[in-house]
Amino acid sequence: MRHPLLVPDLRELLHDGEVAGLRDFFSGYHPGRVAELIEDLETQDGDALFRILPARDRAQVLSYLDNARQVRLFGVMPATEAAELLHVMSHDERADLVNRLDEDVVDPVLPHLAQAEREDIRRLASYQPGTAGAVMTTDYVTLPPHITVREALDRLRHEAPDRETIYYCYVVDHQRRLIGFVSLKRLILSRRSAVIESIMQRDVIFARVDEDQESVARQIDKYDLIAIPVVDASDMLVGIITHDDAMDILRQEQTEDILAFGGVSRDVEANEETYWQGRIVEAVRRRIGWLLLLFVGGTITRYIIHRFDWVDTRFPEIEFDTFIPLLIGTGGNAGSQAVGTIIRGLALGEIQRSDTSRVLFREVLTGLLLGALLGVLGFVFAWLLLGHTKTFATVIALAIIGICVWANGVGALVPLLARRFGIDPAVVSAPLISTLVDATGLVIFYTVAILILIKLAGSGP
Amino acid sequence: MRHPLLVPDLRELLHDGEVAGLRDFFSGYHPGRVAELIEDLETQDGDALFRILPARDRAQVLSYLDNARQVRLFGVMPATEAAELLHVMSHDERADLVNRLDEDVVDPVLPHLAQAEREDIRRLASYQPGTAGAVMTTDYVTLPPHITVREALDRLRHEAPDRETIYYCYVVDHQRRLIGFVSLKRLILSRRSAVIESIMQRDVIFARVDEDQESVARQIDKYDLIAIPVVDASDMLVGIITHDDAMDILRQEQTEDILAFGGVSRDVEANEETYWQGRIVEAVRRRIGWLLLLFVGGTITRYIIHRFDWVDTRFPEIEFDTFIPLLIGTGGNAGSQAVGTIIRGLALGEIQRSDTSRVLFREVLTGLLLGALLGVLGFVFAWLLLGHTKTFATVIALAIIGICVWANGVGALVPLLARRFGIDPAVVSAPLISTLVDATGLVIFYTVAILILIKLAGSGP
Repeated sequence: MRHPLLVPDLRELLHDGEVAGLRDFFSGYHPGRVAELIEDLETQDGDALFRILPARDRAQVLSYLDNARQVRLFGVMPATEAAELLHVMSHDERADLVNRLDEDVVDPVLPHLAQAEREDIRRLASYQPGTAGAVMTTDYVTLPPHITVREALDRLRHEAPDRETIYYCYVVDHQRRLIGFVSLKRLILSRRSAVIESIMQRDVIFARVDEDQESVARQIDKYDLIAIPVVDASDMLVGIITHDDAMDILRQEQTEDILAFGGVSRDVEANEETYWQGRIVEAVRRRIGWLLLLFVGGTITRYIIHRFDWVDTRFPEIEFDTFIPLLIGTGGNAGSQAVGTIIRGLALGEIQRSDTSRVLFREVLTGLLLGALLGVLGFVFAWLLLGHTKTFATVIALAIIGICVWANGVGALVPLLARRFGIDPAVVSAPLISTLVDATGLVIFYTVAILILIKLAGSGP
Repeated sequence: MRHPLLVPDLRELLHDGEVAGLRDFFSGYHPGRVAELIEDLETQDGDALFRILPARDRAQVLSYLDNARQVRLFGVMPATEAAELLHVMSHDERADLVNRLDEDVVDPVLPHLAQAEREDIRRLASYQPGTAGAVMTTDYVTLPPHITVREALDRLRHEAPDRETIYYCYVVDHQRRLIGFVSLKRLILSRRSAVIESIMQRDVIFARVDEDQESVARQIDKYDLIAIPVVDASDMLVGIITHDDAMDILRQEQTEDILAFGGVSRDVEANEETYWQGRIVEAVRRRIGWLLLLFVGGTITRYIIHRFDWVDTRFPEIEFDTFIPLLIGTGGNAGSQAVGTIIRGLALGEIQRSDTSRVLFREVLTGLLLGALLGVLGFVFAWLLLGHTKTFATVIALAIIGICVWANGVGALVPLLARRFGIDPAVVSAPLISTLVDATGLVIFYTVAILILIKLAGSGP
């Protein structure tokens, strides 16, 4: 309950039927806050409060309510009222909502909408999920190039109530091709008699309708835009994407990077799915693929240990196998750190394609320093705490150094290679790197042991 | 090189000294694009191009150039020119730039600025990094409550050139306390004679100056704001944070989550540091802490294996130890998936404080299903491929199920506990969960082996 003091007052006003008082009260509130209040009330009271809001406020509040509630509120509305609501809603929200509603709810409502509105809903719903087309809205302002600033401002005043934003205006020719851009700030600062064509910015930053939504959101982020225009294959303006939608896209995509890094598959179609919405079998489906693959890959560790079993047998007093989880675990940890660092550098655009060898050098050197520090600890652990010989403690120290260098190298190289082959580097997960390092870490450990204990030191530990 | 066709033309115009032509050309460009062109030219040409831009354009372009170039361009400017640039720059960018410059560059410039500007720079630089104060800007529009819409629009026209945004105006009383908010859209739609007080939104969504920058950015995201006002302890308006800065903050914070998930410590002070800027010893410093801690924690695996060595000795033909990396690796992988999923759910606000037991139930059930599928694979691997007995293959299968259930439970519980104790759940890394599951996974494996091989089946495998 985010507004504990307001809720009892609201409940009273509602039960007394104080419609005018309530409307007045909420006119000073942000629609997102009104939505929170509705969610804080008991369901019936919340629904009642929603119903007394004026249509335009209701449309705005609706977009802040969760999807299930939107669908429910809509389902119990008379058809004409529902049509009125769709009429004043932002066009992208409207298309999304209609998409979520059952046919038997939508079908009686649609005939109450204008032909153009039905068309708009159908078209916006037809774009491939994950593209600019699927997230754009069509309630934007266009201006012809030859009118004056005064005429443009009059037009804005007239159109403002029905537009998602009036702060950015797009200039189009008679075929609706995008030819320029002018901000409301520029309009306000220009002479009233100036012609739009003479004050517009001609180099417009735009997106293609079939472009990936993440790349569009990144443009908005990079150029600090309030909105970006979207054009089709013939350069015709077909929509805009606003800064708030871009922020939602980036939040979704970047938190998906965390999922992917944890080793859970992405699912473009399920973009809007929350933690709770998917069924458990769906969660299993998204995780089992990597687990199976890594399990099969991991079986190689069994063969490696089996293969080097003779080293164990030769030095029965050492218990080689008791050190294995510690050594390969450390490698997995170092590898996870490296891959996390590289994925971040790639996501922020700090690491370029030409930087591969510099990155590798840097990570390998980091691995060497980390390995040296941990190697000292490993030496002390094996020698002083466990009472092994200095020779064997040296084996542990050198194996740790080798494993850390290798893990950092693999952790840096794999995401860089993924990108080179056109694979999103964010799919390179900590589990993948750990599994790669598990098997190779064993080989490093046994090789160091053989070199030091047998080749260099003769026979004994 | 992002603009390959333009670069040769530009170079020619520059070398011919076509200043008017160049200025004219760039007036139609977004400042971010001009910055890209400057970066695409050779250094000398780029600097020359920057210098011929009008002061106001220069200020905007500067904010899109990288920090090192900003400092260099500034260092070679005459003091009066530098002061003029600071005068027209956005206030937050200005404070950041002055902060980065050496004293011997700044000191000759400051006397050319007005006293109020010097104060503003000093104050903005004085806030704790990572707070709202440190990212806010002071070039915003305020309105008194009693003026008319007509007067407000005139004021906006007058102030617009020096304001970061004019689309949101904040209403303050005579003590500069924030009492309302009105958007330019609302102004344009209102009667010219209406009084601001009567049309303003009274329930303003605001931030406190000492609030964490991430929580402020989340407010902007949640309520789809273009800017949020920032107030001090006495409710006085002291700045605003705009949507583009919020997006930068969220990008930084969320990619930091990837770093943290990989097991690299956060460093609030180094927020703006790129992959390349920190020295390698700095990278080592940020990684060694977790590695050391996990190494020390990981040594417990050695004691566990040593402790259960008698099981190995009793069934010499099985080679228990050869299965260990595979089993605990699988546990680490399942745990990473769970923790990635939970961190995302927490970051998106989908998992609430009251959901702990529901989340645990869901993850444990997911672990059971995943474990069952992998267990079948493990059974087939041990029985058919390696030719072990069905009894031992059952041990492997049951150990996998137990480890997966446990790993999913730990992966879900640890971030939830972290949050309960006020620790950012994003610090719960894949390496931490892997290390926890390594040791406990061994105990599960040996316990299952003892139960099945010795207690249930009698003596033999």
